[in-house]
Amino acid sequence: MNETELRDLTVRVLERHGANCEAARLQADALVEGELRAHPSHGLRRLPLIVERMRRGLIDVTAVLSLDWTAEASLKVDGNMGFGPVALHAAIDAVSARAERTGIAMAAISRSSHIGMLAPYVERVARQGCIGLLLTTSEALVHAWGGRSRAVGTNPIGVGIPTSNEPLSLDMSTSAVSMGKIIDYAAKGRPLRDGWATDRNGEPTENASEAAAFGALSPFGGPKGYALGVTIESLVATVTQTAYGADVLGTLDSEHPVTKGDLLIVISLDVLGLKPVLPLLTNYLIQIRASGGASTPVDVPGDRARRTQAERRAHGVPVDSAVWANVHRLAEGSEFE
Amino acid sequence: MNETELRDLTVRVLERHGANCEAARLQADALVEGELRAHPSHGLRRLPLIVERMRRGLIDVTAVLSLDWTAEASLKVDGNMGFGPVALHAAIDAVSARAERTGIAMAAISRSSHIGMLAPYVERVARQGCIGLLLTTSEALVHAWGGRSRAVGTNPIGVGIPTSNEPLSLDMSTSAVSMGKIIDYAAKGRPLRDGWATDRNGEPTENASEAAAFGALSPFGGPKGYALGVTIESLVATVTQTAYGADVLGTLDSEHPVTKGDLLIVISLDVLGLKPVLPLLTNYLIQIRASGGASTPVDVPGDRARRTQAERRAHGVPVDSAVWANVHRLAEGSEFE
Repeated sequence: MNETELRDLTVRVLERHGANCEAARLQADALVEGELRAHPSHGLRRLPLIVERMRRGLIDVTAVLSLDWTAEASLKVDGNMGFGPVALHAAIDAVSARAERTGIAMAAISRSSHIGMLAPYVERVARQGCIGLLLTTSEALVHAWGGRSRAVGTNPIGVGIPTSNEPLSLDMSTSAVSMGKIIDYAAKGRPLRDGWATDRNGEPTENASEAAAFGALSPFGGPKGYALGVTIESLVATVTQTAYGADVLGTLDSEHPVTKGDLLIVISLDVLGLKPVLPLLTNYLIQIRASGGASTPVDVPGDRARRTQAERRAHGVPVDSAVWANVHRLAEGSEFE
Repeated sequence: MNETELRDLTVRVLERHGANCEAARLQADALVEGELRAHPSHGLRRLPLIVERMRRGLIDVTAVLSLDWTAEASLKVDGNMGFGPVALHAAIDAVSARAERTGIAMAAISRSSHIGMLAPYVERVARQGCIGLLLTTSEALVHAWGGRSRAVGTNPIGVGIPTSNEPLSLDMSTSAVSMGKIIDYAAKGRPLRDGWATDRNGEPTENASEAAAFGALSPFGGPKGYALGVTIESLVATVTQTAYGADVLGTLDSEHPVTKGDLLIVISLDVLGLKPVLPLLTNYLIQIRASGGASTPVDVPGDRARRTQAERRAHGVPVDSAVWANVHRLAEGSEFE
């Protein structure tokens, strides 16, 4: 499939189920980015769930955002249960404009559905000449360090920084691996690697089915990754006045209203007179890439995703056939036959 | 030793070498916190280096800070080569006050000496009812993921968040271990653990002396820890207009002017009406602490440091005898005999 096919059919599905064309485009873009960047767990695989949530009114296709400046550099965004990407892009527009005067500004986003990968948003901020930090909470799937049960979200962190060419773009979860990967290993009967997950008793396990059904993901990097994850959850949930831990719901199920939060912080380089610094940053990143020697190129955050994106734009996007069949079914209404 | 002895003698050393009493107290506090929290690499062990830098004028005891609001919520702090803790505390005061109006505000700090541990600063912000984020760059001691040489700082991250009782307090570097620990293992002839460091060829090594002299520290958590570290360095150095990578100098040597930067971001809970949320955060952290079961208590960031601090305040601080002898020598001038 090529990018346009994916986007057009996804837009058609969303519009057919009541989304207006702008919302459908932004939501479709978010899902297509998951496919372009080879993160299918954030790609079209999510479309049936999104449609089911739309049908049940858990995603309100008629939602209108409420934007409220609670302080001069602080915006409160109430998604009113609408599409996550719609709220995020509106927040980027408002906060980036405000940061041109205040230097730094933030948006605390609540009652807004899943936003997909973080990289496309922070890269958009970076392309506007600003630094973007984006933090979001998610369902508690990760155990605390020393903990025996699911207690912390996979709480990803996204950072986009402009350079003289392509932005530095960090987008990583604070779990060792995604639950999608565990489920994939379970389906294939493959053993988990050391440090990926625990069983129902909180003991490390190689059993993917056990981990997926009753266990927990492990944080990346041991105690430090856990500390980072629980700090992100505490920060985001507090500032956005959204749920903590096991109360975070609505991005993986079709039963519950969404209760996670998103925190966006934008720093304007222009107003702070920092644009002249970018060649120095660019040069530093060139040195990093060369630090593996001629034989082993080193990646800077964003490099690999850009390569994958370019390759898939050039040679097509491999979409799982069952996933693609579902998209067609949702587009053509055969589910009513 | 008790805390007061350590502080008084350290203040005496700093004043004797020209620091004014306020600067001496803040710098001494930073070093004593290193001892109280059992991080001797950020404790009195650094005093002889600080004194040597004062003697050489690399730390200017007459420095007066320049504070400049480059935008409404963005403060530029030029330390003018003075003491790091002096610049940091001045930045906290100014930025916290501004955040009461703007909701979020930041300080970009340059030409300011080593600040010590991050936790005491972000905890101070939290005790004022604000969230504090503190990022700082440091000498390139860490290899990139796939890299073969020192390319990235140990770039620590500090976050303080108020709760109904003690603040959540994150203070962690993005390296697997500190160079201080590698040097300590080298002195004791102990083998390094897997994943701690590499040799001169960029290969993993157990040889502490080799790693300390010619190798590099490994990032914590593999590629994700590296990605976080290089992102922090890119963010902080760009916003503070300070050095990148191998150009970061002046916190470990007595030869070079300091070229690292510090970035402080403060979010006011009060102006944003978030104080009522704190009991929910407090309750979440209680659940996290209980998630290990009755037998294994789980720590939240800041818990362990608080225990160590309390224990050392109650029963005294064990300071390395050679380190303590140096402090006395510097206090009593016998180095001139």
